[in-house]
Amino acid sequence: MYSDRVRGVYPGRFQPMHKGHLQVIRWALQNVDELIIVIGTAQESHTIANPFTAGERMVMIREALRESGIDLSRVYIVPVPDILLNAVWVHYLRLYVPSFRYGIARNPLVVRLFKEAGYEVLVPPPYDRERYSSTRIRRLMIQGDDTWRELVPPAVARVIDEIGGVERLREVTGRD
Amino acid sequence: MYSDRVRGVYPGRFQPMHKGHLQVIRWALQNVDELIIVIGTAQESHTIANPFTAGERMVMIREALRESGIDLSRVYIVPVPDILLNAVWVHYLRLYVPSFRYGIARNPLVVRLFKEAGYEVLVPPPYDRERYSSTRIRRLMIQGDDTWRELVPPAVARVIDEIGGVERLREVTGRD
Amino acid sequence: MYSDRVRGVYPGRFQPMHKGHLQVIRWALQNVDELIIVIGTAQESHTIANPFTAGERMVMIREALRESGIDLSRVYIVPVPDILLNAVWVHYLRLYVPSFRYGIARNPLVVRLFKEAGYEVLVPPPYDRERYSSTRIRRLMIQGDDTWRELVPPAVARVIDEIGGVERLREVTGRD
Amino acid sequence: MYSDRVRGVYPGRFQPMHKGHLQVIRWALQNVDELIIVIGTAQESHTIANPFTAGERMVMIREALRESGIDLSRVYIVPVPDILLNAVWVHYLRLYVPSFRYGIARNPLVVRLFKEAGYEVLVPPPYDRERYSSTRIRRLMIQGDDTWRELVPPAVARVIDEIGGVERLREVTGRD
Amino acid sequence: MYSDRVRGVYPGRFQPMHKGHLQVIRWALQNVDELIIVIGTAQESHTIANPFTAGERMVMIREALRESGIDLSRVYIVPVPDILLNAVWVHYLRLYVPSFRYGIARNPLVVRLFKEAGYEVLVPPPYDRERYSSTRIRRLMIQGDDTWRELVPPAVARVIDEIGGVERLREVTGRD
Amino acid sequence: MYSDRVRGVYPGRFQPMHKGHLQVIRWALQNVDELIIVIGTAQESHTIANPFTAGERMVMIREALRESGIDLSRVYIVPVPDILLNAVWVHYLRLYVPSFRYGIARNPLVVRLFKEAGYEVLVPPPYDRERYSSTRIRRLMIQGDDTWRELVPPAVARVIDEIGGVERLREVTGRD
Repeated sequence: MYSDRVRGVYPGRFQPMHKGHLQVIRWALQNVDELIIVIGTAQESHTIANPFTAGERMVMIREALRESGIDLSRVYIVPVPDILLNAVWVHYLRLYVPSFRYGIARNPLVVRLFKEAGYEVLVPPPYDRERYSSTRIRRLMIQGDDTWRELVPPAVARVIDEIGGVERLREVTGRD
Repeated sequence: MYSDRVRGVYPGRFQPMHKGHLQVIRWALQNVDELIIVIGTAQESHTIANPFTAGERMVMIREALRESGIDLSRVYIVPVPDILLNAVWVHYLRLYVPSFRYGIARNPLVVRLFKEAGYEVLVPPPYDRERYSSTRIRRLMIQGDDTWRELVPPAVARVIDEIGGVERLREVTGRD
Repeated sequence: MYSDRVRGVYPGRFQPMHKGHLQVIRWALQNVDELIIVIGTAQESHTIANPFTAGERMVMIREALRESGIDLSRVYIVPVPDILLNAVWVHYLRLYVPSFRYGIARNPLVVRLFKEAGYEVLVPPPYDRERYSSTRIRRLMIQGDDTWRELVPPAVARVIDEIGGVERLREVTGRD
Repeated sequence: MYSDRVRGVYPGRFQPMHKGHLQVIRWALQNVDELIIVIGTAQESHTIANPFTAGERMVMIREALRESGIDLSRVYIVPVPDILLNAVWVHYLRLYVPSFRYGIARNPLVVRLFKEAGYEVLVPPPYDRERYSSTRIRRLMIQGDDTWRELVPPAVARVIDEIGGVERLREVTGRD
Repeated sequence: MYSDRVRGVYPGRFQPMHKGHLQVIRWALQNVDELIIVIGTAQESHTIANPFTAGERMVMIREALRESGIDLSRVYIVPVPDILLNAVWVHYLRLYVPSFRYGIARNPLVVRLFKEAGYEVLVPPPYDRERYSSTRIRRLMIQGDDTWRELVPPAVARVIDEIGGVERLREVTGRD
Repeated sequence: MYSDRVRGVYPGRFQPMHKGHLQVIRWALQNVDELIIVIGTAQESHTIANPFTAGERMVMIREALRESGIDLSRVYIVPVPDILLNAVWVHYLRLYVPSFRYGIARNPLVVRLFKEAGYEVLVPPPYDRERYSSTRIRRLMIQGDDTWRELVPPAVARVIDEIGGVERLREVTGRD
């Protein structure tokens, strides 16, 4: 029954999704029946910090999960635009997603916002954030350094290639 | 490969999803590789026209597809808030969904907006709109007429019961 | 100490405040230490449904309380603009007001929203809503029927006169 | 010198511009050095009340003025999106237009808003509003009654034909 | 009578209120009959620059005034969300507050905006801005330096303690 | 006929317009029948980056074109507020302007956005961007260096003087 399953919400921007994200997703699926992956700042694209659209990020995540043999029927992937009201954010999230029991986060502000809204928080084990970081991946892309490919699941690299993502990111950062 | 699959977008409000919607979804899946179901007016809930949250509607649709034996890995379900700019709406949709080839719609305005944006439109065969209508279902719920249950997939009725949907709709319409 | 006092929130549009509202305020002050009066739809003015600005409504309420001998130091009067997201509204309210224990409301939707957000609700005894109704008062003003003056506290009538409120309401409803 | 010229602001929605509007514009140009025509509700299009985009309305007005031999260098045509704050509207208008001395309006609310903002108002002589009315023109278009063509300047009818305006309006009003 | 009293508007963010603010308030109350304290950027909280909600800031101010023996019935405290249109801001403010004669400000932009909107400006005598600065107070809080307590009225420190304000500010600034 | 004329769109912020902009406009008018100059970020004014209102910028451009002997009847000048959705921006632009064939831009992001939206792009020859830069002009104004006058068309300098633009910019950048 829908209301019997235990769900957790894992929010991120996924610009782009990397292997650290995938590790969190695997871990989370050991702790909940269904996982809700929230693609935040869904309205933004074509900027340095947010080059990919929410739709593209949704495809990257789904293809990576499929490739990893993760059961898609246990995962919701939901784009959510910003509301710019921190204190209201978790309640606003609830509009867009199935009911859930846990927030899944390490960031202290996000942990706090889930707790202030009355949710328990599952804190995933840390991954190597020096290495796996979307900001770093975007920087490598701009510099023309192909080692970013090792940092993301193969399916993500493939989607980025199909949509011409590296070229777009470079144009977004260009000057006249 | 992601870009080889043919996708179509089927937008609706699904307040709630009924058997007519399900018929369209089945038909669409015979015409595309992957179907993107857009839950429109995602930001609204707890009103007479839009009693259910986007998250609840997402659950209804998913449970109904599962129950009908439809392959969830061929379907994207994506909530999209209103933009209130008709002429821009299709382009705004594209932000939130994977790239697609077809719009799927019968409503003349929606058909027109897809065409103005350069998309082909797949027009599904009509279903009995006198009978299968979300507006009518909400009216029956408010009147306490249980025949609305025959108009929606069983899974939808079950989710509505679990969330106390009929009671909510009645309170939303109440006066002091 | 701030956190020891029991507070309740009473939301309304107060277009304009009438004697029914005053009755609720008196009753509420017997049940809480401090009362937070929320002036809703604060952003709107100069329309038929919302002729007065939030600032003007704040003055009306304050002058009426003063006139009635109510201790202003027990009352917060807070204008809050609409958010248009019913399910989030109570949490959004919390941004603008001191922390509180009770919602104060009779309207079933408002009662429900307070309860969904985890608040107890104090339901004030009913007043004569046929007689005391802001909609009715505005209709009388438009018709040039001065009996509206009997329906509002004298201080409210005085403020409306000072700001030329009846004339404004008539012009707002005028046609070319 | 820029600041020596006397300017007036004439706001409207122009859905579509008709001969009554043209009459007001001619009259206004006898009373000011430069006329600022504000195209209101600029963000909306493809609806029954607002079928045409701001850009299309701008073209209609400009072509009609040109056809009428009016000196375009004395006229500004400026699209302005809604702000939904009546009391602020005139000040918001000032952001989008050159500085001006007069508001030009007959509608009592608009007259009042200009006056509250400290502007003098030029009230143009009335035209036959039974006959020249954008609402009536749109109704005729929907009904397939070609007499709407007599109510608009020839250039406006030509632009509407070029953009397929009547067909669009009918599709906008269509049902599934 | 309402319209006879002379009012001034003093806008600030009060993140948090400090002794310099209190000094300005005392000074202002010697120059006007009623003081309107506007809590700006009311929509924001839980960020480094704006850790406290508008409701919390309202409590801080009110408790500090009470503690200082200031007559609350001469003061309005009004939260106002941002409009992000500088040129319109003063007119937008007017929606939320009682009518007023003076702006109260030292910041050149704010002074200019009040003057452009046709208001006289009362410029309060300067206080020691090196010492009394909300930015500095927040920095001390983050650094764990308790000397911030000397910079705010005792009632403000007490409210911050009751709401766990220092802990919140630190979590808001934390990294994963 | 309206639809026969070839139009191009040239977007900029024009804070303020300088001789480089004028050079682009002259060049563009050799390549299109009608030029649409879009004044972007139209909603913003009274900030360091955007000191002038859209209305003032419209006047500057028009006066400069007039002074240069450019035929105003071949030019549309259209203020457009930001939408903050890069991927939708060109389609949103289309709401506000007449239909067009070309985007006119050198900035790689803008070029890309026009192309993604299906438009051809005309790339104007470069001008001396070290010398002709609005950012530089604003910096000179703040520093009290009058050489900014050589960088803008004489009509622009005149309008800036008439509106007290330099003084405003300095006050906007002032501190308490």
